[in-house]
Amino acid sequence: MNYKKLSKSELKDIKAELEKKYASYKESGLKLDMSRGKPSPKQLDLSNDILTVMSDYYAENGFDTRNYGVLEGLPETRKYFGEVLGLDPDNMIIGGNSSLNLEYDALMRLWVFGTQGHTPWSKLERVKFICLVPGYDRHFSILEELGIEMINVELFDDGPDMDRLEELVGNDDSIKGVFCVPLYSNPTGACYSEEKVERLASMKTAAEDFKIFWDNAYGIHHLYDDGEKLPDIFKLCKKYGTENRVLYFFSTSKITFAGAGVSLMAASSDIIKENKAHLFCQTIGYDKINQLRTLEFLKTHGGIFAHMKRHADILRPKFEMVAKKLEEEFEGNDILSWTEPRGGYFISVDTMPGCAKATVALCKEAGLTLTGAGATYPKKLDPKDTNIRIAPSYPEEEELKKAIEVFCICVKLEAVNKLLSE
Amino acid sequence: MNYKKLSKSELKDIKAELEKKYASYKESGLKLDMSRGKPSPKQLDLSNDILTVMSDYYAENGFDTRNYGVLEGLPETRKYFGEVLGLDPDNMIIGGNSSLNLEYDALMRLWVFGTQGHTPWSKLERVKFICLVPGYDRHFSILEELGIEMINVELFDDGPDMDRLEELVGNDDSIKGVFCVPLYSNPTGACYSEEKVERLASMKTAAEDFKIFWDNAYGIHHLYDDGEKLPDIFKLCKKYGTENRVLYFFSTSKITFAGAGVSLMAASSDIIKENKAHLFCQTIGYDKINQLRTLEFLKTHGGIFAHMKRHADILRPKFEMVAKKLEEEFEGNDILSWTEPRGGYFISVDTMPGCAKATVALCKEAGLTLTGAGATYPKKLDPKDTNIRIAPSYPEEEELKKAIEVFCICVKLEAVNKLLSE
Repeated sequence: MNYKKLSKSELKDIKAELEKKYASYKESGLKLDMSRGKPSPKQLDLSNDILTVMSDYYAENGFDTRNYGVLEGLPETRKYFGEVLGLDPDNMIIGGNSSLNLEYDALMRLWVFGTQGHTPWSKLERVKFICLVPGYDRHFSILEELGIEMINVELFDDGPDMDRLEELVGNDDSIKGVFCVPLYSNPTGACYSEEKVERLASMKTAAEDFKIFWDNAYGIHHLYDDGEKLPDIFKLCKKYGTENRVLYFFSTSKITFAGAGVSLMAASSDIIKENKAHLFCQTIGYDKINQLRTLEFLKTHGGIFAHMKRHADILRPKFEMVAKKLEEEFEGNDILSWTEPRGGYFISVDTMPGCAKATVALCKEAGLTLTGAGATYPKKLDPKDTNIRIAPSYPEEEELKKAIEVFCICVKLEAVNKLLSE
Repeated sequence: MNYKKLSKSELKDIKAELEKKYASYKESGLKLDMSRGKPSPKQLDLSNDILTVMSDYYAENGFDTRNYGVLEGLPETRKYFGEVLGLDPDNMIIGGNSSLNLEYDALMRLWVFGTQGHTPWSKLERVKFICLVPGYDRHFSILEELGIEMINVELFDDGPDMDRLEELVGNDDSIKGVFCVPLYSNPTGACYSEEKVERLASMKTAAEDFKIFWDNAYGIHHLYDDGEKLPDIFKLCKKYGTENRVLYFFSTSKITFAGAGVSLMAASSDIIKENKAHLFCQTIGYDKINQLRTLEFLKTHGGIFAHMKRHADILRPKFEMVAKKLEEEFEGNDILSWTEPRGGYFISVDTMPGCAKATVALCKEAGLTLTGAGATYPKKLDPKDTNIRIAPSYPEEEELKKAIEVFCICVKLEAVNKLLSE
């Protein structure tokens, strides 16, 4: 249906009908939460054995993981994730339960100490970052906290708007970095193409200490067997002599337990060395028991890829249910577009301009909590007020079905309201 | 024996005898390490059940600890440690496996963001800290990393030289803080008296944003049943309206597993609120599984105090063996003094001036690794070169016995060398 072509009186009829449906949902006392990309209890259950899997507490080299030490993390854990992700285990630090924390700390080091002899960013008049939009709110929060100026650049289906990005970072040496979620990006599900990654690796940056925060949060989080493959950014950087540009992050938060996994950071040997020197002042070492436990669990459960298939089997029907419903309700229409990601944790939708906030508010009133409209933009300012992030992972299927029904009604109701007011 | 009263020829005889003993130890191919305050494997064994104790993963309020969230830590874990330490659970954050990390992050926030509207310390021309000496090398490392100027103030048996400290912080507003280990201080074992703590709470500070980093690392780590009691600094601060001055830290690193415990930070409600706002940007939350596991383990093992007695039963004989040997060898002498702490992890000794470095080097040559001489002072500069930190916790008793024998010989040999060269 093309809503924009309808007459006022047709719109009014539709509105009346939608309001009746909306009221009935509202009265039913729903309480649904689709606001955060949390794994569901069933997904967490997949990893319960991790609590009891440990047979002993010695690393392969005999090190007692219960005690202090091993700043960079256990060799076998680094080796395992090196193989899974195609990373050099010698240029890796295994962290605590949060890759966001590793990202924050890495940025803080650049801020306070600088890198490779460059002026610490805190000492500069202005510091700017490129923000790929729509993007991950937690990345933007870190930048906002530090007072870093944020420049929006659009994220396409195959990666950033590189023409725009290259122009900006090539000419402004106060632009110091960009956060990327290169596979199944939060929230659109975009996957960076080889060409885009090569351009990120090869582009001229006016700032010599420009950094790409490569947050590979969903690196192996495919919904389908033929998962997307992430281009090897370190290999491409080596080709152009820009290895020091990349800070790579990963975690098992959405593999084992969301709140109690292990994280990792990888970079060139120079950059890891520099980070380790600062890390030495910050801690004696991260939790190695969890590093050992994670490894033992994954190995005794058929390896990490088999484990991710079990997650996919739970997640895929949810994503497909949402896609099916959106198709049924909005196929060929002119009031909603959406992404159909093949991995990750989110579906991104765009309403008519100026309708996202009000749509989310309507949902809230009917008992459905969504991620706040605007959250996918720096300072929560979505310039066109269109983007809404849908997180289908947490609710069970019955709930999700109801949630998405409510959502569809709210999208339509707000669109009709908008059109009637014009 | 009074070595300083001996004639050169008497000293030479003693030296010849010592050298013979030293050579025999050296030949025996020792390899002993007393450098760090690590719990021994037997101590770690006390907590092995923590790996399997978890019966489920729900907090008392039904929260699934496997998932994301709960930035400040589980309510029941905060409550438990609140009771153990006499702290308000509402003004507490439970952290990851490292209280050093919490201290580092708290200092970094003061550095980058400042507190309660005061200028961030990084923006000031000069920032100084009081360093109580001898003290903990890791505290000094953080200050050194940030380029903070360090002013030595002596730590007496009952706490800091308060006359000196009050004079300094009362007159210089660039002095922003002090690290304290108020119970069984690292390395001397000093315990702060009520009077000293009250002076810390009441003293005038030229800097309004002066902070006491209250690192209560050994708060319940008594060697004897009649353990020292730590004065309640928050209560005293309330009396003088200085509650915002204190950042309190604790961890279970030397209670359960050294590398996989939980840490905590406590402060006034204003300061905790401020820290939580920054922490929100840094992480989604710390490992709550470990918070629940720690609590369940302690509760099913008779509580934390019963557990600490089991540690004491392993540690006490080691401390007593060292004390006995030092008495046998140096009682009433003029070349070595030492502390006899009633808790904590260290014994602190003072050699004749100018002898510490050489003594540690002699030990090293004979196969005994001690904490580097000077480590207990900022920038590793012990002005008199006298202090050596002995860490008796890790070696088993047989090894420790040998180690302390070697140590005694090295102390004497270096003293005799020194006296002969004068």
